[in-house]
Amino acid sequence: MHQAAVVVKSGQLRFEPSHSGRAPASASGHIPVRVRLAGICETDLQLIRGYMGYEGILGHEFVGIAEAGRYAGQRVVGEINCACYTCTTCLAGRPTHCPHRTVLGILNHDGAFAERVWLPEENLHPLPDSISDDEAVFVEPLAAAWQIPAQLPVNDFPKVFVLGDGRLGNLCAQVLQACGCSVTLIGKHAWKLEIASRLGIPTASVDDVPRDRTADLVVDCTGSATGLPTAWQLVRPRGTIVLKTTVADPTGPNLAPLVIDEITVVGSRCGPFPRAIESLASRTVDVRPLISARYPMSQAIEAFQAATDGRHLKVLLEITE
Amino acid sequence: MHQAAVVVKSGQLRFEPSHSGRAPASASGHIPVRVRLAGICETDLQLIRGYMGYEGILGHEFVGIAEAGRYAGQRVVGEINCACYTCTTCLAGRPTHCPHRTVLGILNHDGAFAERVWLPEENLHPLPDSISDDEAVFVEPLAAAWQIPAQLPVNDFPKVFVLGDGRLGNLCAQVLQACGCSVTLIGKHAWKLEIASRLGIPTASVDDVPRDRTADLVVDCTGSATGLPTAWQLVRPRGTIVLKTTVADPTGPNLAPLVIDEITVVGSRCGPFPRAIESLASRTVDVRPLISARYPMSQAIEAFQAATDGRHLKVLLEITE
Repeated sequence: MHQAAVVVKSGQLRFEPSHSGRAPASASGHIPVRVRLAGICETDLQLIRGYMGYEGILGHEFVGIAEAGRYAGQRVVGEINCACYTCTTCLAGRPTHCPHRTVLGILNHDGAFAERVWLPEENLHPLPDSISDDEAVFVEPLAAAWQIPAQLPVNDFPKVFVLGDGRLGNLCAQVLQACGCSVTLIGKHAWKLEIASRLGIPTASVDDVPRDRTADLVVDCTGSATGLPTAWQLVRPRGTIVLKTTVADPTGPNLAPLVIDEITVVGSRCGPFPRAIESLASRTVDVRPLISARYPMSQAIEAFQAATDGRHLKVLLEITE
Repeated sequence: MHQAAVVVKSGQLRFEPSHSGRAPASASGHIPVRVRLAGICETDLQLIRGYMGYEGILGHEFVGIAEAGRYAGQRVVGEINCACYTCTTCLAGRPTHCPHRTVLGILNHDGAFAERVWLPEENLHPLPDSISDDEAVFVEPLAAAWQIPAQLPVNDFPKVFVLGDGRLGNLCAQVLQACGCSVTLIGKHAWKLEIASRLGIPTASVDDVPRDRTADLVVDCTGSATGLPTAWQLVRPRGTIVLKTTVADPTGPNLAPLVIDEITVVGSRCGPFPRAIESLASRTVDVRPLISARYPMSQAIEAFQAATDGRHLKVLLEITE
């Protein structure tokens, strides 16, 4: 089957009008999903820079129509980790960490910037009509934000900072506020902070926040190697940092401050889709103000340029057959 | 007051027969302690390489005789962090993290490789006669090992690895075993592992341990920048790494594995002296097999060479007036 697709190969992003899209080699019985709308993520930009050494069709945030299986004909979103469900990691209840997994658009699994994508049926979640396609594209990153309260008793932290005013930072701040945390979103871009502010989230410029190390919990969503060093200027001794940032750089910061200040750093990745769908349906979280540009598939390269130039919070790709 | 001392200055280690030893400038009412025996620590070796930018008398593991105050004439050991007890960090119950603190032999506070050292009375702990001077020198690093069960519910981790067969690794393994953990000490040196083995601790060579990521808790006591990358080849997804290692290197590893595998890293530093003293008195922990060399103060440079050359677990300095 040939289809238009956005691929990364040898560190280059390309729009291919006729790509041989396919289910991952390891997959049997995956369900084809006709993609309607997809979102460009910070991770996509890192993948182009060489993160994970990925080659193939990009894209892991999407909404589409299931073409087979129990959800045939329904609008669905899809969890991106495809586990074996038979190894010790899976049997220990951690399928998103299955060592044999493929990851949609990230690891050995062609992604959603294409007309069709294949996923196991257990990865699919049907959507209520109250969630628009635009909103549905945010389920995957929003689930990643909901992973924080799934990992930590967030209400035990009186003062919470989210560092990074991009897409994920905004979502994490909304989720933590929905959990009842006293949260401040800290960033560099007045217009991005203004969007959060209009959603009722207290914000501050990173230049204005006192380095007085009083935050109990700092969530690093900067997507930048400078995020963690900034975080430990803000977090109190014996405080906690949630690390959402992955970068392609070969090295990271010296970790002596982590030892000296006895900080706990918690790596955090994919999260629970049901919580994300529920919070969109109930409008506990509002993602609509984050969408600032949409492009047709044929202008995918322009869409990626827009996502990279720093003037957008979320760029969407409209995919038509 | 002039005394013989071992100092680090401009990255050079020197023995000074007549150093103007003194209490830290910020200290009033510190108690003079006549040092009898001191231990050379991995941190001392890092300080010589530029860690913390420290200049002054080295040494923070010692036993001596208090010369004033309520313990006058008694054998004492001393906690190394000297806090203000008035700032918000101290009042929040974290005096070892006081931002105004001095740290014996590490930060703005002349250390114990000298005839006399000065510490606040609240830092001193008298010793029972059942603990020898040799053993008492281990109270400070042993307290650092006891910090792990003070920070984490160690019995919740079924499989525990301690990485690093040096002084601190041995102590951490002994402490975790005393807590009831199923612990294996992993190292590079057959003779160091043999010492642990004779203490009843299961051991393994780092070359032989399968990288199957099944450990629930890994304690990095390697004192090496390679420790953390090795730890996350051993720890399971969503497992915990306790980081004891600080190095002087400008950078550390890329932290993407921490995010991808949702690992928790807990920085861990100084710990509870009373638990350390108690476990020495009860012989729950046995430090005597770790002592492999002792030098008089006048041969301090040779003592440091011995501590650096990798043939010793613990080198002691005998200090006489």
